[in-house]
Amino acid sequence: MNRRMVFHICGMMTVLEAVLMILPLVTSLIYGEKCVYSFVAAMGAALILGSVLMLASKTDDHVIYSREGFCITALTWVIFSAIGALPFTISGEIPSYVDAFFETVSGFTTTGASILRDVESMSRGLLMWRSFTHWVGGMGILVMVMAVLPTLTDRSIHIMRAEMPGPIVGKLVPRVRQTATILYIIYIALTLLQIVLLLAGGMNLFEAMVHTFGTAGTGGFSSKADSIAGYSPYIQWVITIFMFIFGINFNLYYLALIRRFKSVFTSEELWTYTAIVFVSVGAIAVNIRPLYDTLGETLRHSAFQVMTIVSTSGFATADFNLWPQLSKCILCILMFVGACAGSTAGGLKVSRVIMLGKSVKRELKKMLHPRSVSAVRFEGKPLDDATLSGVGVYFALYMAIFLGTFLLISFEPFDFETKFTSVLACFNNVGPGLGAVGPTGNYADYTAFSKIVLSVSMLLGRLEIYPVIFLLSPSVWLRKR
Amino acid sequence: MNRRMVFHICGMMTVLEAVLMILPLVTSLIYGEKCVYSFVAAMGAALILGSVLMLASKTDDHVIYSREGFCITALTWVIFSAIGALPFTISGEIPSYVDAFFETVSGFTTTGASILRDVESMSRGLLMWRSFTHWVGGMGILVMVMAVLPTLTDRSIHIMRAEMPGPIVGKLVPRVRQTATILYIIYIALTLLQIVLLLAGGMNLFEAMVHTFGTAGTGGFSSKADSIAGYSPYIQWVITIFMFIFGINFNLYYLALIRRFKSVFTSEELWTYTAIVFVSVGAIAVNIRPLYDTLGETLRHSAFQVMTIVSTSGFATADFNLWPQLSKCILCILMFVGACAGSTAGGLKVSRVIMLGKSVKRELKKMLHPRSVSAVRFEGKPLDDATLSGVGVYFALYMAIFLGTFLLISFEPFDFETKFTSVLACFNNVGPGLGAVGPTGNYADYTAFSKIVLSVSMLLGRLEIYPVIFLLSPSVWLRKR
Repeated sequence: MNRRMVFHICGMMTVLEAVLMILPLVTSLIYGEKCVYSFVAAMGAALILGSVLMLASKTDDHVIYSREGFCITALTWVIFSAIGALPFTISGEIPSYVDAFFETVSGFTTTGASILRDVESMSRGLLMWRSFTHWVGGMGILVMVMAVLPTLTDRSIHIMRAEMPGPIVGKLVPRVRQTATILYIIYIALTLLQIVLLLAGGMNLFEAMVHTFGTAGTGGFSSKADSIAGYSPYIQWVITIFMFIFGINFNLYYLALIRRFKSVFTSEELWTYTAIVFVSVGAIAVNIRPLYDTLGETLRHSAFQVMTIVSTSGFATADFNLWPQLSKCILCILMFVGACAGSTAGGLKVSRVIMLGKSVKRELKKMLHPRSVSAVRFEGKPLDDATLSGVGVYFALYMAIFLGTFLLISFEPFDFETKFTSVLACFNNVGPGLGAVGPTGNYADYTAFSKIVLSVSMLLGRLEIYPVIFLLSPSVWLRKR
Repeated sequence: MNRRMVFHICGMMTVLEAVLMILPLVTSLIYGEKCVYSFVAAMGAALILGSVLMLASKTDDHVIYSREGFCITALTWVIFSAIGALPFTISGEIPSYVDAFFETVSGFTTTGASILRDVESMSRGLLMWRSFTHWVGGMGILVMVMAVLPTLTDRSIHIMRAEMPGPIVGKLVPRVRQTATILYIIYIALTLLQIVLLLAGGMNLFEAMVHTFGTAGTGGFSSKADSIAGYSPYIQWVITIFMFIFGINFNLYYLALIRRFKSVFTSEELWTYTAIVFVSVGAIAVNIRPLYDTLGETLRHSAFQVMTIVSTSGFATADFNLWPQLSKCILCILMFVGACAGSTAGGLKVSRVIMLGKSVKRELKKMLHPRSVSAVRFEGKPLDDATLSGVGVYFALYMAIFLGTFLLISFEPFDFETKFTSVLACFNNVGPGLGAVGPTGNYADYTAFSKIVLSVSMLLGRLEIYPVIFLLSPSVWLRKR
């Protein structure tokens, strides 16, 4: 293991976090808030820690293999969360550091689970930072650096693989750096478009930015206690549509840009994702029709809640905790599924679900015709056995971690539904669950121990398990090169 | 598909069911109960239906491939349940046929979930039949026939594979018939031993038989409203130990008989199963210690409840619904795991869990060393990729069916915990769950629709999914040979 290189890059990332804090710093300056000092202090801490790490681990050996890629990614996310939590605690607005850490992990992992009982009493600078973490975490912290800095060599594909969600991560273009740049350009363009559309709907710039960051990263932090419920139907529909957009594999946008429309329109994952959304919206609309006055309102609430869950954002326009059991159950299952690989969303990802389904189909066929050999195709290409078995293993590990996390927080005095959906919502980076952690509830009443457990589960979910496991394996760290 | 052969064997099985009803018939004769007529009627129905099926589908083509094996198995289990339910309804003791069907499926699949509100008011003949279905279903209905009748050719390995639980089903000896005979001899010997030990503890013969059938099949039906709670500690320990014994792969008993002790003591599955049991008993004992007076009582209740859940029996000596959350959560996870493959227990089976764990380990290794090739070994033999991927696929299918069943019963007005553990307990053939279906509750308040859904899930669990799927696939039935 190239430990020096790992620490060197982590130091570089820490310095970057100080730079990212300029946005909330400016926000609090504009509104003349006291929390400006907490940002200055946190930036100072980030700069000092980052510089020390970089200087102490200077090295000429720039080679990165997959073990370094995993550890750089996981460690960067932990450091980002630890330092990102400082402004909340220093300002005194979230006095407990564990609470602040939970809130920041929830931000970067685009979960959107909150311990805040009264979000509207927070200063705007902190709310901006909280939502901005969604945007940064959505497309990836290290992918951002790859797009900007030339330092990382082309071996950094290992970092990209570790940070980008999905069963298969490839390069759009031969060079990793260019791939990262293209992804971020698309991401920024879509973000700007949504801000403009929200401004057109009458939001002020602060609110437009906060809610766009929450949508783009599929995070779900809002500056309002009632989330999106108080906004106009126009704004609710804009956010619904953009949650759909940010749940699509970004590779497809690139393919559309280079006019390979056929590849876009034949994407199995896109069609399946669209079908899941429409079927769920329809089923829930029928189920909740008696609760609302008009069909339009019913469809709006159904579409919004389905999109917020399947894209693992976690905004809300209605308290789905009060919906009929069938609708709640559909939403629970959507939490497992999530949206497309290569998007900013969490969950298992639609492509994994498709691959698991195809593996099942092949197994059934093999049982009837033991000697038959049938290849599984996905997106027009044959899938090798290694990829398929990798997806199966990932699913087994996913369920094991799910049950393990549930066991760890089982001593909490909440009901089964609350605890089960807490794990479901955190691990899949959704945010709100059902029961006491529903859209109108929060995670404040959990013990500090459970908050840390759930924070780890959010990181496991966002980084798709493996980087966190390798970060915690002494054997990975101790191995000589 | 050799449809004639499928129906012919199913007809033969139906006649067998009439023979099996002699035991409860004699019981009700001894106690002079009115339900004796309902057995006569059901036996008549079974004989007529069976004979018609056999005569109408006479064929010289005795060849059985895997598709026939799956369909014979699944169809036999459905017919057995449908006819086995008749005595309950004809006698009027379970007026609703859907309820009686649920109870009988629960019996044959060794689930032990009940719709009876007052089990002690039932006549003894019916209670004997109800528990006897556990014993018959435990080792397998068709395996029993293979042991007795020479009709089935040696291609009947396909039937055995379809009915015996576990990821790998092999023959103990070259001939299938002998294998089936050996398994049933061990099964009968252990059953007799337990009956003697229970008689020695002061049970009368009726109760000793009922509870031994429930233990041997790992079913869990009792003739008492408070299950085993009212019996002496001696009896509770005997049942605890026999639940452990019937949760072990029966192949190991055969290996012990032919003095291959080394194979027995190096069995990974046996060691893992034992470790799971001891760790769970210990953890729960610590957790529930304050609830009981003495350490002995604490250990007895902890051991009994762990064994009843992990062996998927479903007896009870304590209402674990009232235990602390951590203990309940451990029991829930044990419901998923189940006991050993090749035993009478349900659940995923310990060997599948081991194989999934080893696949995960291999995947982690492969991520760090992409070019390394490492074989996975289990029970001293290398596992081929097909078996490993088969286990992964089974797990994915298992979870999909689990969530689908949960969705289907989600409209019921019970709380999340009750519905979730209803599916968990039925699909894994455990019986009691938590909440309203806990050890002191029952399934009576579910709608007829949900009772049928849960009945199907019990069959899916007992037959390990595939046979039921093939039974319901028109393409399997329509295919010409």
